[in-house]
Amino acid sequence: MRIDYAVKGNIIFTKVFGKYEVIRNGYIVVQGNLVKGVYKKLNEEFSDLKVIDYGNAMIIPGFVDIHLHASQFANLGLGVDKELMPWLEEYTFPEEAKYVDISYAKKVYSSLIKELWKFGTTRSCVFATIHKDSTKLLMDMFAKAGLSAYVGKVNMDRNSPQDLTERAVDSIRDTEEILKEYSSKYELVKPIVTPRFVPSCSSDLLKNLGILAKKYNAPIQSHLSENYDEINFVKELHPNCKNYTGVYNEVGLLGDVPTIMAHCVLVDADEIELLARKKVFIAHCPSSNCNLASGNAPIRRLLKKAVKVGLGSDISAGNSLAMMDIIVNAAQVSNMKWIESGRVDKPLNISELFYLATKGGGEFFGKVGSFEEGYAFDALVIDDSSMPTFKTLSIEERLQRFIYTGDDRNIKVRYVAGREIEEPEYYF
Amino acid sequence: MRIDYAVKGNIIFTKVFGKYEVIRNGYIVVQGNLVKGVYKKLNEEFSDLKVIDYGNAMIIPGFVDIHLHASQFANLGLGVDKELMPWLEEYTFPEEAKYVDISYAKKVYSSLIKELWKFGTTRSCVFATIHKDSTKLLMDMFAKAGLSAYVGKVNMDRNSPQDLTERAVDSIRDTEEILKEYSSKYELVKPIVTPRFVPSCSSDLLKNLGILAKKYNAPIQSHLSENYDEINFVKELHPNCKNYTGVYNEVGLLGDVPTIMAHCVLVDADEIELLARKKVFIAHCPSSNCNLASGNAPIRRLLKKAVKVGLGSDISAGNSLAMMDIIVNAAQVSNMKWIESGRVDKPLNISELFYLATKGGGEFFGKVGSFEEGYAFDALVIDDSSMPTFKTLSIEERLQRFIYTGDDRNIKVRYVAGREIEEPEYYF
Repeated sequence: MRIDYAVKGNIIFTKVFGKYEVIRNGYIVVQGNLVKGVYKKLNEEFSDLKVIDYGNAMIIPGFVDIHLHASQFANLGLGVDKELMPWLEEYTFPEEAKYVDISYAKKVYSSLIKELWKFGTTRSCVFATIHKDSTKLLMDMFAKAGLSAYVGKVNMDRNSPQDLTERAVDSIRDTEEILKEYSSKYELVKPIVTPRFVPSCSSDLLKNLGILAKKYNAPIQSHLSENYDEINFVKELHPNCKNYTGVYNEVGLLGDVPTIMAHCVLVDADEIELLARKKVFIAHCPSSNCNLASGNAPIRRLLKKAVKVGLGSDISAGNSLAMMDIIVNAAQVSNMKWIESGRVDKPLNISELFYLATKGGGEFFGKVGSFEEGYAFDALVIDDSSMPTFKTLSIEERLQRFIYTGDDRNIKVRYVAGREIEEPEYYF
Repeated sequence: MRIDYAVKGNIIFTKVFGKYEVIRNGYIVVQGNLVKGVYKKLNEEFSDLKVIDYGNAMIIPGFVDIHLHASQFANLGLGVDKELMPWLEEYTFPEEAKYVDISYAKKVYSSLIKELWKFGTTRSCVFATIHKDSTKLLMDMFAKAGLSAYVGKVNMDRNSPQDLTERAVDSIRDTEEILKEYSSKYELVKPIVTPRFVPSCSSDLLKNLGILAKKYNAPIQSHLSENYDEINFVKELHPNCKNYTGVYNEVGLLGDVPTIMAHCVLVDADEIELLARKKVFIAHCPSSNCNLASGNAPIRRLLKKAVKVGLGSDISAGNSLAMMDIIVNAAQVSNMKWIESGRVDKPLNISELFYLATKGGGEFFGKVGSFEEGYAFDALVIDDSSMPTFKTLSIEERLQRFIYTGDDRNIKVRYVAGREIEEPEYYF
């Protein structure tokens, strides 16, 4: 048994939804790329172990962002004053069309990866664009940087601007090419089947993507029930379907392989039941939903019905890549939901949201987002010594303070799958 | 006529609610502590003027925070998972009691002032605690730092913990002592009459504070209609009053002198009419209202009824002193309000919210928050050169991006009333 090293510090993570595990001045023993265990003291078995001591810093699992658009990074902080459909047309589509040019993609994607690193997002589920070559480039870049990601070539063959409309047959061919070439190319970076959303994909395309996903055992990501006008459009397009979720289900894109659906702001009880049954992951993107005036997703209700939930930054509809910001935003909208629901849907507290931002979303990657035995050792070292402190704080309080008031400056070290990740270079 | 200097850069501000004034590579001429004018080019009259050239940076008015609790700074980012009343009892009151110790006050207040400087808050309206000496100290510290503030000794004589309960007579005496000593002591730092809120002040105390405010022509700040339980408590305490706003009005604390009321989440049509008529400023504190699950204030409705509105961080119920964060939060909750109101109350856009964060709140200080002639020259130099940029952006877009994605690192220089303000020292 080869033991590689241990890290020492104030360890905090959530094994169970809503419950912190805290080990002050504890040790995480890392074996290869996995966690062997968490210990208050290292016993004899580990006496020869190299220990990296982070002193009074906190050690937390890396953040997992299960919904973001890499190709919208250049729009971050811009144009956040529209609803979904006009926002797509005025800001998003013109930007995404640029990714036909691989040198443009190289520039923006390398900058994005640097930012993900900065904010401690060790795992992400990413939409690229329809462009095959830029998508492959992004996967190569993630792999080179040492960060883990599912990256999707986007599929679109209807109701889209001309320069972002593929023929279904080309869309399928390019997707399959990527699945063939990249499914086993990297350990930490994998392709994901990515129909943009129902309005921009014909039934023929959707069905064929479902077949591809099964053939290559590749996961799926898409958007579901984000916005009122979008849902009405889907109803018009698929008048015989019971609901939006049902459209994905009928074409074989709902949970036959691991599936992420972003948003689910306006899902009804039937849809929630179906999402739970098909073990679909919901990417909750509160900043995006607030910025685009989409609404307030019923996350407490989804969780009560045992639907799997992770958090997503959804840049650039979301305005921050920092998962700390997403946690805060999620807490805030859950407070508003509590009022809106007549004080029925209980607010989500920070330990619950921290779980969603680590182990909740991490589950999509396998054993990720916790420091339990056998989990990938993804970790952040949080140094909050620069924060004004006037009383003794518990580790839980320090974590809460970091989430509510900290930023990238407090993240000192990042590990992904047992390896410390250095700052990626620009222009790989 | 003595002209002191000019600053050069990309100038952007809001003279009118919702409309940017933009002068690319323009000049602001500063005479003494006031703006003389904004110019595209400097004509002969100014040929001898010293010009401070900020290159491609933006120059914006300083931020104005019209509601924050200095004495809660040590709790920033902590305990943000309660409603107002239990939050006060568990977190806030025990912290505020510590300010009986002036050496504790010195430590926390000097740290707070440093943070306000960091985030470019050039003017603020501040609650201290009931403690006379700590309150005076805070005023002296603001003055020494060169930042402008209204600072209030808090008044509380009922329904409060023992160590924060004053006798009305002592509360009034201490308040008057401060008004006498500090009303003319500093140009930029002034006292403000600060009954905490109706539940913690007897009618006798409230009435006498109204008299004091008029006698010393001092402004007033308090809280109004933040939370459901609070409002019910006020109804119990004052069964004969029509509504919460009416209680302040009856005791002479509503707009006879310039008055700020924080929150106004749950005001009804009658109250809105009264607030407009009495020219009361509303401190809109969206982060606080979200964090404490207070609700979503009807800001568009208040503005339509010509009620004056500024923004407040309301730390530590709010979790950030950065007015950029407050603007973003205010935009987000206004989007939610738009949905909640059946798409009637239009979302607030960034130029509208930027106005509230500068000239809107600035009006409480006089001619503050704009670069019009005769306005105090409060300004921030915003350097966004470190932000990843992939296309040419307008100044409006750069300002929006700074607000949505920037932080203190982008604020390079701060001016208050014509004077550049250096970083304050700790432990004055």
